Amino acid sequence: LSNWFQERLASIQPVDHDFEERARVRLDDLTKPVGSLGRLEDLILRLSGIRRELTPTLDRLVCLLFAADHGVTAEGVSAYPPEVTAQMVVNIVSGGAVSSVLARQHGVKLRVVDVGVRVPVEHPEVVSRKVALGTRNFAHGPAMTRAEAEEAVAVGMAMADEAVAGGCQLLLVGEMGIGNTTAAAALVALLCDCPIEQVVGAGTGITEDRRKHKADVIRRAIEVNQPLATDPWDVLSKLGGLEIAAIAGAILSAAGHRIPVLLDGLMTGVAALWASRCDKRVGDYLIASHVSAEPAHRMVLRELGLKPLLDLEMRLGEASGALLALPLVESACRVMAETATFSSAGVSSRHDG
Amino acid sequence: LSNWFQERLASIQPVDHDFEERARVRLDDLTKPVGSLGRLEDLILRLSGIRRELTPTLDRLVCLLFAADHGVTAEGVSAYPPEVTAQMVVNIVSGGAVSSVLARQHGVKLRVVDVGVRVPVEHPEVVSRKVALGTRNFAHGPAMTRAEAEEAVAVGMAMADEAVAGGCQLLLVGEMGIGNTTAAAALVALLCDCPIEQVVGAGTGITEDRRKHKADVIRRAIEVNQPLATDPWDVLSKLGGLEIAAIAGAILSAAGHRIPVLLDGLMTGVAALWASRCDKRVGDYLIASHVSAEPAHRMVLRELGLKPLLDLEMRLGEASGALLALPLVESACRVMAETATFSSAGVSSRHDG
Repeated sequence: LSNWFQERLASIQPVDHDFEERARVRLDDLTKPVGSLGRLEDLILRLSGIRRELTPTLDRLVCLLFAADHGVTAEGVSAYPPEVTAQMVVNIVSGGAVSSVLARQHGVKLRVVDVGVRVPVEHPEVVSRKVALGTRNFAHGPAMTRAEAEEAVAVGMAMADEAVAGGCQLLLVGEMGIGNTTAAAALVALLCDCPIEQVVGAGTGITEDRRKHKADVIRRAIEVNQPLATDPWDVLSKLGGLEIAAIAGAILSAAGHRIPVLLDGLMTGVAALWASRCDKRVGDYLIASHVSAEPAHRMVLRELGLKPLLDLEMRLGEASGALLALPLVESACRVMAETATFSSAGVSSRHDG
Repeated sequence: LSNWFQERLASIQPVDHDFEERARVRLDDLTKPVGSLGRLEDLILRLSGIRRELTPTLDRLVCLLFAADHGVTAEGVSAYPPEVTAQMVVNIVSGGAVSSVLARQHGVKLRVVDVGVRVPVEHPEVVSRKVALGTRNFAHGPAMTRAEAEEAVAVGMAMADEAVAGGCQLLLVGEMGIGNTTAAAALVALLCDCPIEQVVGAGTGITEDRRKHKADVIRRAIEVNQPLATDPWDVLSKLGGLEIAAIAGAILSAAGHRIPVLLDGLMTGVAALWASRCDKRVGDYLIASHVSAEPAHRMVLRELGLKPLLDLEMRLGEASGALLALPLVESACRVMAETATFSSAGVSSRHDG
């Protein structure tokens, strides 16, 4: 592995379980029945452990949305034509996409980063960090060179580094890339050692015939490329996407800075899984916003040991799930910081069980 | 049935399914794959059908939180002493409870209504509408007289009427009442014809021994009172609670004014079920915020045909689940109102499936 990458991994520390214990003591003194906030309590404790604070805050939220094209769209794996990637990038920064609406609702700074859109994207608010003009069609050979994959990971890291330097205390990640559920499903098949048929979903909404074709394309891609499942870089460069690589880089950066990451759907999940294969401590920094309708997403979350906050059968991407779940994470922090204790509020505690 | 009540039921109309169809056309033209927002799309359409607007808004949100005591606490069914009801009412209006924190986060006006707290509640922000000083212990006889039950329902209606007159476009409901999961479980056993053992949960966190005792108390209450399962008023007055009756009234009022109601946990669920037994059209106006850890809640939601937005194993009450899920409902409305259409954003639509 490259030196720069090893150095970045070395900066990742485990979460502070002592702090989680201290946070549990505070949490159990708040005026509510012990444990009554259910899974939100696990979230509160984890945020304390990550941030090493009893009442962590979530200031200067940044959502990094990486966009790229996929050569495999030439095989007809998507319900939408590939030019939609660039069109949606412009729509997102112009405020018209679902993710734009949700980011506005929650006061999140949305940064759209072009890491590999095939055509020029003419908009001043799009951050241009093109690594390549999309991936190559992995049905015929590797999607990326190893150098391209490394560069995309590095771009993601640099974008997250910049967000953290600006004071970001929670990172949201998302993507836009027509064809990327095909790449993600291929990665899951390899990384989770799953039958291809089980990981291929309807993506943006394809027919059953086309879904079978998509599975065939992935089968061919694995035969042609012979990726080595135990080598994350080999898998990523041969079957991945530039935006998936960049998300993985952003996650690794955030973990190294002790910043929690709010994941979105399948693509961010597989990026997180890839990052955790590089360094398993990454897993402690991840929050699963939702589980999508893509069957592979559920497998990825299981593999990561994450339970999603939402399960609304969504399959939109562009950080929409992360943005929808964000208020729950904010509620967790506010409850910990602002709820009165039994003694301060003059409320009697339990007499027994 | 009393005349005043029959007149209120008569004002409830079915939701407008034609409007839901028109909303579907608009929704499918927004720049996102068709159906990709999953269950949020059903919510959007339902809100349109209720409000008869393509882009419904959620202004002047009000959360009505009804509080009352339960005579059955004398049987030792709760982990907390009964004085906690009054103490928590003061804590909530003083800003220290979980519900206070969440209402502040989301800009919701929280109105705490005392419909039957046993002791005087001395706080100017608590709305005093005491129907009785708590229910009587239903292990020995009816919890309420029929007149008390009617008055509590009428108080709930009046409070919701007032909120709607003030411009409230979405009503949240919640409760505070030590002992009320016992009353709610008894109601569910009757209304859903379920075995008592299946509907009795840990409430605020009781031991397994105490949970069995709680089931025995409910069994005795049903034997002693012989409520007639097919007569909602008989069931409510014999086994219910003043706050549960008030919530039911608030729900009936909101439905009559075509205002959607965001439910909370078990107590609001059983109040909604009771209301829907009075008039089944009520069901169309309900949004299930979450399913709690109380086993009876899942049965109630199934009976109502509602799918919860959240499933976080919570068991707190005081509208906490409704307040946590509220941003999702707001997101649904914003997405419908603010997302660009394919033609307006210059995004290519799907080429096929």
